[in-house]
Amino acid sequence: MADDHTTPDSAGTSGERPGVRAQTSPGRWEGVPVMPYKQTSDAPFRDVTRQLLFTDPNLGCEWRYFEVDEGGYSTLERHAHVHAVMIHRGKGQCLVGMAISEVGPGDLVFIPPMTWHQFRANRGDCLGFLCVVNAVRDRPQLPAFDDLAALRSDAAVAGFIRIGKE
Amino acid sequence: MADDHTTPDSAGTSGERPGVRAQTSPGRWEGVPVMPYKQTSDAPFRDVTRQLLFTDPNLGCEWRYFEVDEGGYSTLERHAHVHAVMIHRGKGQCLVGMAISEVGPGDLVFIPPMTWHQFRANRGDCLGFLCVVNAVRDRPQLPAFDDLAALRSDAAVAGFIRIGKE
Repeated sequence: MADDHTTPDSAGTSGERPGVRAQTSPGRWEGVPVMPYKQTSDAPFRDVTRQLLFTDPNLGCEWRYFEVDEGGYSTLERHAHVHAVMIHRGKGQCLVGMAISEVGPGDLVFIPPMTWHQFRANRGDCLGFLCVVNAVRDRPQLPAFDDLAALRSDAAVAGFIRIGKE
Repeated sequence: MADDHTTPDSAGTSGERPGVRAQTSPGRWEGVPVMPYKQTSDAPFRDVTRQLLFTDPNLGCEWRYFEVDEGGYSTLERHAHVHAVMIHRGKGQCLVGMAISEVGPGDLVFIPPMTWHQFRANRGDCLGFLCVVNAVRDRPQLPAFDDLAALRSDAAVAGFIRIGKE
């Protein structure tokens, strides 16, 4: 739900700092900069930040942290690669395929290949989540007209999804 | 700190269940069995369990959860692969190389290649931590006599390490 790259975020880095990097406040870590969610402006989202926790090239994957402010949402998208997610703080809801679920701290979310997904901080709190992803991955796809029609064939999904035009 | 395999834990599995698996109590998840830490008895440890949170073959890595009961410790070991760790609950200390650090919820720990490491739940609580690791990895090495002598050349490290003979 949070990639705008076809190359790893870690490209050009030489690895992590050995040992401990403390969580200095909820969702903030020593030496980990808070970055924009997307580096392109064509994918709709609202009030999301991105942090790279571990991107060592030896890991085979990247471990990121995304935080959606209250009222915000990640991009509604799908891709061939999978996402392994754990909610870190706050609460909200997520869409995976046609299923909408409540999520809170410690809950696990798996996004299979080519499955529409979106996270919303729509429960009076922020929604911060850890997301592990293969270091080599495809670019996310946004929904086309027909995709949106199919998603909106379900009333609950129609009411849930946000595409930046609300 | 927690591998006794030369092959991925996911061997033979076909992927994760799509969508949400709730954290049912601290350090326990819907559909995630609690397993022994090690499947061999030659590596010393005390009071540790292992859970596989995400092992989908498309992920390139495995996301595990280890929980050390109060007073317990993971195996003192090193390996060529790296570990990306986040403390999930409880508190304790960890050794990475020759550095001993206090750790608590949300703290990040990176274990570089061939670096001695051990986690201890020695602060009056359990120590539960998330650990992400490359799906393809080498077998951990235990310290030989000379390795222990080198570790023990530092008084603090000498007092910290546990090798099952205390």
